[in-house]
Amino acid sequence: MGPEEFRAAGHELIDWIADYRARIPQLPVQAQVKPGEVAGKLPDRAPAQAEPFGQVLADLERVVVPGVTQVQHPRYFGWFPANASLASVLGDLAAGGLGALGITWQSAPALTEVEEVVVGWLRELTALPATWRGVIQDTASTACLIALLAARERATDYSEVRGGLQAEDAPLTVYTTEHAHSSVLKAVALAGFGRDNLRLIEVNPVTYAMRTEALAAAIEADVAAGHKPAAVVVNVGTTGTTAVDPLAEIVPLARRYGMWVHVDAAMAGSALLLPEMRWLIDGVEDADSLNWNPHKWLGTLGDCSLLYVADPAHLIRVMSTNPSYLRSAVDGEVTQYKDWGIPLGRRFRALKLWFQLRLDGVEAIQARLRRDLDNARWLAGQVSSTPGWRVLAPVTLQTVVLRHEPPGTGVVLDADALNAHTIAWANAVNTSGAALVTPSLLDGVWSVRVSIGAEGTERPDVEELWSLLQQAVLRSGPA
Amino acid sequence: MGPEEFRAAGHELIDWIADYRARIPQLPVQAQVKPGEVAGKLPDRAPAQAEPFGQVLADLERVVVPGVTQVQHPRYFGWFPANASLASVLGDLAAGGLGALGITWQSAPALTEVEEVVVGWLRELTALPATWRGVIQDTASTACLIALLAARERATDYSEVRGGLQAEDAPLTVYTTEHAHSSVLKAVALAGFGRDNLRLIEVNPVTYAMRTEALAAAIEADVAAGHKPAAVVVNVGTTGTTAVDPLAEIVPLARRYGMWVHVDAAMAGSALLLPEMRWLIDGVEDADSLNWNPHKWLGTLGDCSLLYVADPAHLIRVMSTNPSYLRSAVDGEVTQYKDWGIPLGRRFRALKLWFQLRLDGVEAIQARLRRDLDNARWLAGQVSSTPGWRVLAPVTLQTVVLRHEPPGTGVVLDADALNAHTIAWANAVNTSGAALVTPSLLDGVWSVRVSIGAEGTERPDVEELWSLLQQAVLRSGPA
Repeated sequence: MGPEEFRAAGHELIDWIADYRARIPQLPVQAQVKPGEVAGKLPDRAPAQAEPFGQVLADLERVVVPGVTQVQHPRYFGWFPANASLASVLGDLAAGGLGALGITWQSAPALTEVEEVVVGWLRELTALPATWRGVIQDTASTACLIALLAARERATDYSEVRGGLQAEDAPLTVYTTEHAHSSVLKAVALAGFGRDNLRLIEVNPVTYAMRTEALAAAIEADVAAGHKPAAVVVNVGTTGTTAVDPLAEIVPLARRYGMWVHVDAAMAGSALLLPEMRWLIDGVEDADSLNWNPHKWLGTLGDCSLLYVADPAHLIRVMSTNPSYLRSAVDGEVTQYKDWGIPLGRRFRALKLWFQLRLDGVEAIQARLRRDLDNARWLAGQVSSTPGWRVLAPVTLQTVVLRHEPPGTGVVLDADALNAHTIAWANAVNTSGAALVTPSLLDGVWSVRVSIGAEGTERPDVEELWSLLQQAVLRSGPA
Repeated sequence: MGPEEFRAAGHELIDWIADYRARIPQLPVQAQVKPGEVAGKLPDRAPAQAEPFGQVLADLERVVVPGVTQVQHPRYFGWFPANASLASVLGDLAAGGLGALGITWQSAPALTEVEEVVVGWLRELTALPATWRGVIQDTASTACLIALLAARERATDYSEVRGGLQAEDAPLTVYTTEHAHSSVLKAVALAGFGRDNLRLIEVNPVTYAMRTEALAAAIEADVAAGHKPAAVVVNVGTTGTTAVDPLAEIVPLARRYGMWVHVDAAMAGSALLLPEMRWLIDGVEDADSLNWNPHKWLGTLGDCSLLYVADPAHLIRVMSTNPSYLRSAVDGEVTQYKDWGIPLGRRFRALKLWFQLRLDGVEAIQARLRRDLDNARWLAGQVSSTPGWRVLAPVTLQTVVLRHEPPGTGVVLDADALNAHTIAWANAVNTSGAALVTPSLLDGVWSVRVSIGAEGTERPDVEELWSLLQQAVLRSGPA
C-alpha cells in the first residue's frame, strides 16, 4: 500500500472511528457474542490477492464491533477505567505513521528523548521525587516483574552474572497482601522466588490495608529462619477495594533489612495528578520504584505503564546488553531504554502521552478525575443510605464495592444463597448490555465492584446505573 | 477530545503521514541530531490548557522527524528491515479507535479470536505443524524469555509453585551459540539460570552454524558433572550473519535429554512464507517453540512478534492467574491469552496483521521477499567479484556481511588498522545520510552488515548503495 492509497483509506477509517465513538452509547456494554462466534465469521486462510479497503472496513463493523465489550461506554463500570482517549489515539497513529525503530537511542533519538521529557512531566505532576527517573513499560505486570528482578539481583549481589538464582543459598522472600493484584503473584513465580517464599501479610479488616506490625513480625520470623527478605510490594489502590497500604510505615521498616520497596499504584496513580490525593504515596521518597498506568483512569490508549525508579542503575545492571551491532559513538551520553526493560525494540509510546497532555491539557484531565471521585462518593452515599444495600470498603478513589443483603424480612441468607443472589443480579445487569459491573470476591464472599471513570460517564449515567442495580435485584427475586 | 474534533484532527494527521511517507526518500537516513537536541526543543512542563492540534502537528515536523532514523527509507540497510507497512498502520489505528480492553476473552472476544485466526493463517503460510498454537508477543526478547521460563519450570517439575528456582539442587544449563542475539543472554540472566550456566557452543567457522557434535559433547559433560540440561536456543538466521543452526540434528539430541528446544527465527521467519525457504526449519516438528517477528522483514508495524508452541499447556501452567474479578462463565471454552505471556492487558495487535495480509495479499508479500533475496544475491556477486572486497558469510537470506580489505598494494593491514578503516568508511556512509549500514564484529574483527529489505528498496537503490560504499572507501583513503 502506497501513500496515496493510505491517504484515501485513512480518511475513511478516521470517519469510521469518529462515527463509532459517537454511537458507543447506543451499543450494548458487554459483548453479546458466544465463544467461537467471531472466529467462525472469518475464513480459514489468508487471501492470496489484495482485498479492497471497503471490505476490510465492513468486516470491522460485521465481525469486530459486536465482539468487543465497550469499555468507552458511559455505563461501563467494569474492571477498571480503560479510557482510550481520542487525543492519545492520534498520538499512537503518529507513532505508527512514523514507523520509527526503537532499539537504541541512535535508531530514533526522538523516541527516547520525547519519552524522557514526557515521563518527566508526569513525574512532576504526580509529585514524585525530582531525582527519580521514569520509563514506559507495557503493563503493570511487566513493571512489577522488572522491579522484582531488580530486587532479586540486588539481594544476591547480582547472581545473574554467576550461577544465577539457582546457585543462591539463603532463600529470598517477598511480601505483599492477599489483596495485591494477581500479577504480583505471577511476577514472584516468574522471577523464580517460588510461591512458598511469598508472604501474604495480614490486612486491617476494615480498610484492607497491610498491617505494618504483621509485616514486621513476618520479616523477623523469616530472618530468624535464615531467609533473606528481598522485596515488599506495597499496594496503593488495590484492585478489589482500592485499599492503600501504609507506605510511610512500611518503607523505613523495609529499609532496615535492605529490601526493595515497589509501589503498585497501577490504577490509583492517576489520582496523584490531584494535589489533594498525594497523601496516597506519603513516604515514597525512600522507596525504590513506583508503577502506575496512564492507560487506566488517566485515559491514555494502552499499552502505557509508567515505571519510576529511584536509581535506574539497578535496572541497567540487571538488563543491559551491549552487542557490537547496537553500539554507537554517543552511547555514554544518552539514555538507552533497552536496558530499562525486557524488550529490545520499543514502540514510540511517548507520543500517546504527549498528544494527550497537550491536546486535552492538564486542568481538564484533573477536572475529569475529580468528577469521577465525586460520582463515586455520591453513589456510595446512595447505597449506604438504602436499606438492604451495603458499601463494603472505604471509598478512597473511584471504586465502590457493594452488595445487596436482603433486609430484615426475617430471612437470614447463608453465604451460598447470598453468593447466588449477588451473582444472579450482577449477571442480569451485565448480560442486559445496559451497564457493566464486576463481581469480585471480598473476604471469600461475592461482592460487586463499581469502578467509575469512563471518559463519558457523567452523573446521570451513575444515577442510571444505581437504578439498574436496584431493578436487577428486584427482578432477580427476594433471594 | 470528542469525536468531531478527532475527525478533523485525524484527517489532518492522515494527510501529514501520507505526505511524510512520500518524501522519506528525500530525508537523511540516519538522524542527524546530537544527544539532548530533541529534548532541548521541548518545554519543561506539561501544558495546563489544551493546545490547538496544528501546534502539535507542527512539533511533529519540527522536533520529531529530524530526530528519527528513517528505517522506511529505500537506502536503509541497517540493523534489520523494520517496515511499518501502511496497511498495518491502518490496522493499528483501527485498534486504537476501538480502544478495546484486552485482559480476558470476555473483555474483548474479538481481540482473542481474530488473533487466533490470524496467527493460524500465518502458521499455515509458514508450514508450521498444524497442531501448534500461536500468540502475539511484543518482541523476540520477551518470546525467548517466556520459552526459557517454560523450559525452567518443565525441567524443575514446576518449582514456581514450591520453593522456586532458588530451591532446586541440580543446576539447570542452557545452550546456544555466541552468534545468538543478545536477548538470549538477557533471557538466561533474567530467568535466573545465571551466565555460568549458559553454554556457547562452537560454530562451523564458515557457516557460523552450531556444531551438533560440540553441543552433544557439552551436554554430556554437563550431565556427567551433575547439571541438568534444560533448554537449547536454536538460531535460524542469526543477527550477525543470518547463520542457520542445524535444527534437524539438534532436536533429536535435545529430545533425548528432555530439553526444551526454542527456535529463534526473529528476522528469518518472514522467509518461511516462501516454500523454497522452508528448509530453514527442517526438523521443527519435534521442537517446543518457535518465534519470529512480522515487525521485521514481513513489514508489520511493531510491536508484533509471533510465538508458536507445540503445547500451550506449558505456558498456561507457568503463567496463568485466576483472580475472582477476571472470571466468567465461559472460561473453560475460550483461549485466555493472558496466560500465554507476561502482561495481563494486551493490545489488539492482530488487527495489524489482519489488515496487512488482507490489504496487501499474500502473493505480493511473497514477491517482495523474493525481490529482497535476489537483491542480496546480486550485491554479494558484485562484492565478491570486486578486488579488495570480501563477502564474509554465506548469503542465505537478505543480509550481506562484507569488508573492504585493501588489495595487493604490498600493505598488509594489521587488525587494528583494518578495524579503523572499516569503521571510518562505514561511519562516512552513515553520517552522510545517503544510506545506512551496520558495523558489526565478526570473529572479533569489524565488518559491515548490509541488511536488505526496506519496503521501498529496489535494485537501483542497492546499486546506489554499492556505489556509495566504494566511494566511501576511496574517500577514506587507502587505509
